[in-house]
Amino acid sequence: MAYFIGIDMGGTSVQFGLFNDKEELIDRSSIPTTKGPGPTIMMDWIDSHIQKILAKEDLKRKDLKGIGVGVPGPVVDQSQTEVLVNLGWGEVDIKELFSRHFSCPIFVANDANLAALGEAWLGAGRAYDNLVMLTLGTGVGGGVILNNHLLEGKHGAAGEIGHLPFLTKPSERACGCGRHDCLELCVSATGIVARTKDILDHTLESSILRHDYDRLTSKIIFAAAGAGDSLAEKVVDETAYDLGRALSIIGSILDPDCFVIGGGVSSAGDTLLHPTRTYYKEFAFANTGDTPILAAELGSDAGTYGAARLAIQQV
Amino acid sequence: MAYFIGIDMGGTSVQFGLFNDKEELIDRSSIPTTKGPGPTIMMDWIDSHIQKILAKEDLKRKDLKGIGVGVPGPVVDQSQTEVLVNLGWGEVDIKELFSRHFSCPIFVANDANLAALGEAWLGAGRAYDNLVMLTLGTGVGGGVILNNHLLEGKHGAAGEIGHLPFLTKPSERACGCGRHDCLELCVSATGIVARTKDILDHTLESSILRHDYDRLTSKIIFAAAGAGDSLAEKVVDETAYDLGRALSIIGSILDPDCFVIGGGVSSAGDTLLHPTRTYYKEFAFANTGDTPILAAELGSDAGTYGAARLAIQQV
Repeated sequence: MAYFIGIDMGGTSVQFGLFNDKEELIDRSSIPTTKGPGPTIMMDWIDSHIQKILAKEDLKRKDLKGIGVGVPGPVVDQSQTEVLVNLGWGEVDIKELFSRHFSCPIFVANDANLAALGEAWLGAGRAYDNLVMLTLGTGVGGGVILNNHLLEGKHGAAGEIGHLPFLTKPSERACGCGRHDCLELCVSATGIVARTKDILDHTLESSILRHDYDRLTSKIIFAAAGAGDSLAEKVVDETAYDLGRALSIIGSILDPDCFVIGGGVSSAGDTLLHPTRTYYKEFAFANTGDTPILAAELGSDAGTYGAARLAIQQV
Repeated sequence: MAYFIGIDMGGTSVQFGLFNDKEELIDRSSIPTTKGPGPTIMMDWIDSHIQKILAKEDLKRKDLKGIGVGVPGPVVDQSQTEVLVNLGWGEVDIKELFSRHFSCPIFVANDANLAALGEAWLGAGRAYDNLVMLTLGTGVGGGVILNNHLLEGKHGAAGEIGHLPFLTKPSERACGCGRHDCLELCVSATGIVARTKDILDHTLESSILRHDYDRLTSKIIFAAAGAGDSLAEKVVDETAYDLGRALSIIGSILDPDCFVIGGGVSSAGDTLLHPTRTYYKEFAFANTGDTPILAAELGSDAGTYGAARLAIQQV
């Protein structure tokens, strides 16, 4: 039997998923990381961890038929990255790096792109061939899946939906990319907290959130909205409005089979997705208003699923 | 040798292109139409015109290996249209309509989508596999070409970029679709004229365009800008700003190899495209600012080229 490993390299951990060629997950695990170790040391850690995973299943390195790797940055030609901010790395050829350790084919893509591929494969989008996923976390990632395959784009920047120039009136806040008009400023967890603090700072509206001012998270805000706090409800409504409008922008270009919403913010479930569907429909072109908007199902494993899928599709 | 006909059905004329399987255009022609004749009568006109085209080249109906048809509206499954406003038609199965007259395979798609496919095939985008085309005319059409194939979308609405909800502050004017925030309101010929009249109506700014108020066209406005009229220059600048921002929105989702701008407005050439490139770059994500923005090359023939291509690709 052939085996594949999907790897999702993040700023705080590297996640691993071992799959067989029956599309079954055999083993999932992770190792903690911190910004600091350069590519070479990190690669030694990854190598010994994969050795452990294989040993556990009584497999040899030659049983590995492909490794897919997700990294937090744009990837060109499934190989080269320009800069991986969250890893503290500059320009690295990830494929070449892995190829020094492993003889099987290596495939590299952006982590949010791979989360979309994972959800399309065995997650919320498994019944659809064409979907767009938005991952709403600290930042906003995205992925475009067409005919079950990842769209990477000329510069590896397809699906960089978090940096869609969304605001016509620039925000005072800056996005991680330096611009002041990105969608990310509106619908990320960070953006939701900032939106809330902005109202708390500039109005006298009463809200239970005032007690949580210094430890506000999007989770606390959604919980307050669920409990009927009107200020929190307003924040959720504004977020859903922006998200619904953003999805309708994407819809007018791609008309996908469905949208999938993932990331920490999506754990709000229907508190966010219900009004998002309403606003999406309001903005959507003609008969496209019925396109399903689904909550992601694979959680933080989506990236490793997608990474494995990327390898499986090409071997 | 195999022959293919590409047909572009518009509100004022139906255009025909006869191609051989060496991708050569053998004959191009058109018949005038007016709103009024229903599908059956129009189909008789089209049939006798095709008969004439074939006779001219000494061909038989059985030499036709495929017909591609472009229609001014969304098309589902290369067959069914919901409503063809410019033809004055309601819901029609175009494929079935043609199949009553012709035994070869029939393929139907949206006209702006096919213009994109035509430009990708033998026009401005012939060196690229992935592109997005915007056709700026009375309205704004669009088409998304990925891996040299047309993206149609779940509801046939992929590439409906004219109806991308672009304005956060709705316009007083309504788009043909009924909404007040469509990109079409900003960058169509109609929009450019309206933008100009708005400034003429609400300011005392001097401009040679005041003499042309009642017969303003985007062509006159671009000519005035070229001649240094500052009001016209402002309109061109605002249009380029909107167009550049719109392309960067598309770019952050698809990261195509190039953009192609067609339609009547694009005859302004670099007067419009030069500032558009500057604004695009300003809004574009990371390293995607160098994506070429090209003027279309096939003019009003793009649709027939694309229609023929649609058939050739599938036969």
